[in-house]
Amino acid sequence: MKKQNRRKFLALSATLSTGLAASALPSLKEKEKNGVVHHVFFWLKNPSSKEDLNKLLAGLKTMEKIETVRKIHIGVPAATEQRSVVDGSFSASELLFFDDLAGQKTYQDHPIHQKFIQDCSNLWEKVIVYDAMDIYNGL
Amino acid sequence: MKKQNRRKFLALSATLSTGLAASALPSLKEKEKNGVVHHVFFWLKNPSSKEDLNKLLAGLKTMEKIETVRKIHIGVPAATEQRSVVDGSFSASELLFFDDLAGQKTYQDHPIHQKFIQDCSNLWEKVIVYDAMDIYNGL
Repeated sequence: MKKQNRRKFLALSATLSTGLAASALPSLKEKEKNGVVHHVFFWLKNPSSKEDLNKLLAGLKTMEKIETVRKIHIGVPAATEQRSVVDGSFSASELLFFDDLAGQKTYQDHPIHQKFIQDCSNLWEKVIVYDAMDIYNGL
Repeated sequence: MKKQNRRKFLALSATLSTGLAASALPSLKEKEKNGVVHHVFFWLKNPSSKEDLNKLLAGLKTMEKIETVRKIHIGVPAATEQRSVVDGSFSASELLFFDDLAGQKTYQDHPIHQKFIQDCSNLWEKVIVYDAMDIYNGL
């Protein structure tokens, strides 16, 4: 399967599996949301540079000005037990919440986000983004 | 550097960099939290199995009963644009918030969490855990 086709398939699978999961788990349905959880992990080119880290953190903070961002968390690796499944090698993370896919798209194309990429992308060597659609949230 | 030493170094770096970031960014300090964001991504052995996905989701939902879990989000890949940096290949994700490292440790050792691992670990082929300590949260 070509990469592009595989991506489309994955996106479709996600849509289908969400519906299936919601219908198969009625206890989740009542609190079901379509909120989007956008979590980005950054690995700096110079992980020991305070200056680079602070520049990245300051850049990440500007994202809260984007009108569709409902909640923001900026973090660094926590000193939890480093089990084999834990990846504590990232330099910084940004967790953003959106009401829906449209809100995430607005953020993606927003001049503030584009400026951040322009100003800061030279700082990192790797980025991984995970976009999850809430099928349940609680407490 | 040996893996174990590298982990210790990373944990130490995280502790140091947090302090540095907070002091270098006074605007963050006032809202600084030591909350722990625990995000786990699961890749099922049988990603097309509704039954396996639902079993996993039901297992993940039991985690909200653990007394130190402050907030829970259970998700599946969102149908956002699949850019090269986006990893949309996971089957399900769980995002948990704790007040501090002690709260995360209580969860880690909790019988409910242990039972989940016992009941569901046969379902997945890969898990990645990211633990981030909040240095800023807003909105």
